[in-house]
Amino acid sequence: MGPVRRSEVGPLRMDTSRLLGRLFELGAIGGLPGGGCARLALTDADRAGRDLVVSWMHGLGLQVGTDQLGNVIGVRAGLENGPAVMMGSHIDTVATGGLYDGNLGVLAGLEVIEAVAAAGITTRRPLAVALFTNEEGARFAPDMLGSLAFVGGLSTEAAHQVVGIDGARVGDELARIGYLGPLHCPGPAPFAFVELHIEQGPVLEDHGITIGAVTGVQGISWQRLIITGRSGHAGTTPMHLRADPGYVAMRLATFVRDLTAELGPPLVGTVGRLELSPNLVNVIPATATLTVDLRHTDDAVLRHAEGRLAQEIAKVCAEEGVTCAASTLARFEPVDFHPAMIDLIEATATGLGRTTQRMPSGAGHDAQMLARVCPAGMIFVPSVGGISHNITEHTDPDDLAAGAEVLAAVVLHLAQAEDPWAAT
Amino acid sequence: MGPVRRSEVGPLRMDTSRLLGRLFELGAIGGLPGGGCARLALTDADRAGRDLVVSWMHGLGLQVGTDQLGNVIGVRAGLENGPAVMMGSHIDTVATGGLYDGNLGVLAGLEVIEAVAAAGITTRRPLAVALFTNEEGARFAPDMLGSLAFVGGLSTEAAHQVVGIDGARVGDELARIGYLGPLHCPGPAPFAFVELHIEQGPVLEDHGITIGAVTGVQGISWQRLIITGRSGHAGTTPMHLRADPGYVAMRLATFVRDLTAELGPPLVGTVGRLELSPNLVNVIPATATLTVDLRHTDDAVLRHAEGRLAQEIAKVCAEEGVTCAASTLARFEPVDFHPAMIDLIEATATGLGRTTQRMPSGAGHDAQMLARVCPAGMIFVPSVGGISHNITEHTDPDDLAAGAEVLAAVVLHLAQAEDPWAAT
Repeated sequence: MGPVRRSEVGPLRMDTSRLLGRLFELGAIGGLPGGGCARLALTDADRAGRDLVVSWMHGLGLQVGTDQLGNVIGVRAGLENGPAVMMGSHIDTVATGGLYDGNLGVLAGLEVIEAVAAAGITTRRPLAVALFTNEEGARFAPDMLGSLAFVGGLSTEAAHQVVGIDGARVGDELARIGYLGPLHCPGPAPFAFVELHIEQGPVLEDHGITIGAVTGVQGISWQRLIITGRSGHAGTTPMHLRADPGYVAMRLATFVRDLTAELGPPLVGTVGRLELSPNLVNVIPATATLTVDLRHTDDAVLRHAEGRLAQEIAKVCAEEGVTCAASTLARFEPVDFHPAMIDLIEATATGLGRTTQRMPSGAGHDAQMLARVCPAGMIFVPSVGGISHNITEHTDPDDLAAGAEVLAAVVLHLAQAEDPWAAT
Repeated sequence: MGPVRRSEVGPLRMDTSRLLGRLFELGAIGGLPGGGCARLALTDADRAGRDLVVSWMHGLGLQVGTDQLGNVIGVRAGLENGPAVMMGSHIDTVATGGLYDGNLGVLAGLEVIEAVAAAGITTRRPLAVALFTNEEGARFAPDMLGSLAFVGGLSTEAAHQVVGIDGARVGDELARIGYLGPLHCPGPAPFAFVELHIEQGPVLEDHGITIGAVTGVQGISWQRLIITGRSGHAGTTPMHLRADPGYVAMRLATFVRDLTAELGPPLVGTVGRLELSPNLVNVIPATATLTVDLRHTDDAVLRHAEGRLAQEIAKVCAEEGVTCAASTLARFEPVDFHPAMIDLIEATATGLGRTTQRMPSGAGHDAQMLARVCPAGMIFVPSVGGISHNITEHTDPDDLAAGAEVLAAVVLHLAQAEDPWAAT
C-alpha cells in the first residue's frame, strides 16, 4: 500500500486508502490471472462479494435489507424519518471485468457514511447505500435488472423468470445464493440518488478533466437474432444450393459496422455474441445466434438504426433462403438527468478545485432507472485509455479519491440542506 | 422392416435386408432425437459402435486386428497369401450426422464377405474390411487421420499427439476406449481398395443416375484463424477507437463467400466454426477464432484461393488494427483415382443394368489416402436432396442395395481374376 490518503471535505475526513483497499479486497473475489475480475450476477462469486459488502455495512451499523430481487440497501438513520439520500451502484461484473465498474459507486458510498459517522454527524435525511442486482446483463438480460425492478419498471415475478445464458433462472439463483430477500420490490423512492462511476470511455482522459457531471445516458437497444438455415456438408453442397445461417449472421454483423459509419457518432454498434450450431469445420451451420447492441443519445436516431437493421435482416435472409427470429433483450430510451442535480455536481466539483465537464454516459447505469422515481445524477472519473469491461480497466487512485470527495460533498448537501435544490 | 431384399450378383446372393438392419442398429448408437447420429471419433459412442462392428466381424470368422491408430481390419483368408482386396470406410460421424456416411462402406463390405462365405467361395486373394479412425475430422484435425497414418502420410507418434476440440488427445482417447491396438501403423498396402459411399451431394439425384464411378477427390484446405484485438465496453468505446476481432472474423467470412462467387464452381468455401471470447452482448470481443474450409478439384485454383484469402486477412487486420494467427488444420491435394478402377466400376455397374456416370467427389474420403499405396476407387449412390452431415441424410434402400451389388461384383472380380486390370 502507498501512503495513507486522507482528504477534507467540509466537516468530513475521507479515508481514501480504505476505499482503495476495499476495492482490491472485493476485486479479489472472482479475481482473474493478470488482474481484473469475473463476478457474474448471482454466481457463487457474486454471493461472496455481497457477503463481504454486507459485512462492511454491518460494521458501519447500517440497517441492511435485501429485497425480492436481491437488491441490498444499507441505511443510516437521519434526524427526519423521510426518504433517504441514496448512493450506490452494483458489484456484478462481466466475464473479463475490472475492479472499478460498479464497485466504486458502492464502496465510495460506504466511505462517505464512514466519514459522516467519524465526524459524529447525524444528517437531516437518512443516508443509504444500495447495490443493485445484475446491472451488467452479462448473465441475465436485460441489464440493470435489479434497479429496473426497484423502480417498478419490471414485475418481480417477471424478473424471477428471466433465464440466463447458462440456463439458470434469476429467482432460483437468488434463492440458491441466499439473496432472495423479504423486502418488497419495487421499493420506496429515495429523496435523491447519486452514483459515482468510472467513465468507461476515453473522453475525460483525452480532455484532461477529473470530474464528469453526467447529463444523461444514451439509449440502448439489445436484440438477439436466431437465424435458421439448412445444415449440410461443406464439401459437397454447391454454393448456389446453400442456405447458410452463419453467412447471414456475418453479413448482418458487418452491416452493423457499416451502419455506424454511415450514421456517424455517437451511434455505436456491436456484435459481441455469436454462436454457430453445430460449429464444426466441415459442416454448414443449421443455426446462428447473434446479439446486436446499438446505442445513441437520440432515440429517433436509435429507432432509425433499428429499422435499417430490420430491413437488412429481411433482405439478406430472403436472398439466402433462411429465416430469422429477432427478439428484444433490452430497450431503454435515452435518459436525461435532473438539471439541478447536474448543476449541483458541477458546482461542487468546481468548489473543491476540480476540473469538470458535462457529458453523456455511453453505458447504461442504475442511476438511469432511479431517475424514474427521484432526482438522480452521476459523477464520472477518468478511465485510463478509455478501457473498461476488460481486465486492464484502471483509474488513477487520485481520481478515485477526487470522485469520492465530490460524492461526499454532494450527498452531504442533499442530506443536510433544508432545500437542496435551491440555487447554490 | 419391409420385405426381405435379396439380389443375385454372379454366384453371390446379397441379403440387403441384413445390411439395412445393421445400418439402423449401428446408427442407434449415438442416435439423435428425430433421426441421425452423433458418434464423434474416439468417444464412448464410437467405442460402442466399434464393438458392435467387431462382433459382426468375429461372427463372420474374420481375423480382426487393430493397429496403433485404432484402424480395425477384418481379413478373410484367400487361396493365395498376398495382399488383400480391401473394402471399408469409417464409422465416426459429425455431431449431427446421418446413418450412411462411412457406415455404408464398412457394413456393405461385411455383407459382401457374408455373401462370399454363404456361397462357399474361397477367393484367390484375401478379402478385408477396414474401418479407419477419425475420418470426419469433427473432433480431431486433420480429417482422414486414421487412413492417412495407415498409408504412412503421418507418423503414429504425431497422430497420437493431436488434440481435439475438447482438449482430448488421440493417443489417450485410443487407450481409454480400448482401441490402441498392437498392429504396426503404417500397415501393409492392400492389393486394391474399394469404398462404397453415399454421394453427399445432389448430382446423382439431379441426373437420375444410380451409380457414380468416382474419378477422384477434390483438394481440401482447412485453416484456423485466431484473431486478437482489444476488448472493451460496447457502449463507451467510440467506433474509431475499436480493434474488434469479431468484426474482422465476420468480414473474412463474407469474403470467403464472395471469393466463391468470383472464382465460380467447383470452388466451395465454408466458415463452419466461429467463436468469440468473451462472447457477451455488451463486450467487444478480445479474440475471434474461425475455420475456413476451401475445396477445389484443381490444386492451382485452390492455391490461388488460399492466396487471395491470405491477402484479405492481411488487409482487413491492418485496417482494424488486430493481429491474426493462421494455421493449417488439413491440406490435401486433389486425388485422381486409378483409371482401370474407374473403368471397372463403370463397366460393372453397366453390366448389372445400373445407370452410371463418372464424377469427382466433393468430400474427402479414406479411399484418397489408400490411393497413395494401391489402386483405389469409389462407388457413389445418391443422397436424397444432396443432404449429408445432417440428421435428415437419406439414401433410398434400393440405391443402397444397388451400391452393395456393384461393390460385390467389383470386389469379386478383383479378388478372383488372375489379372484384374486386363481390359474387361
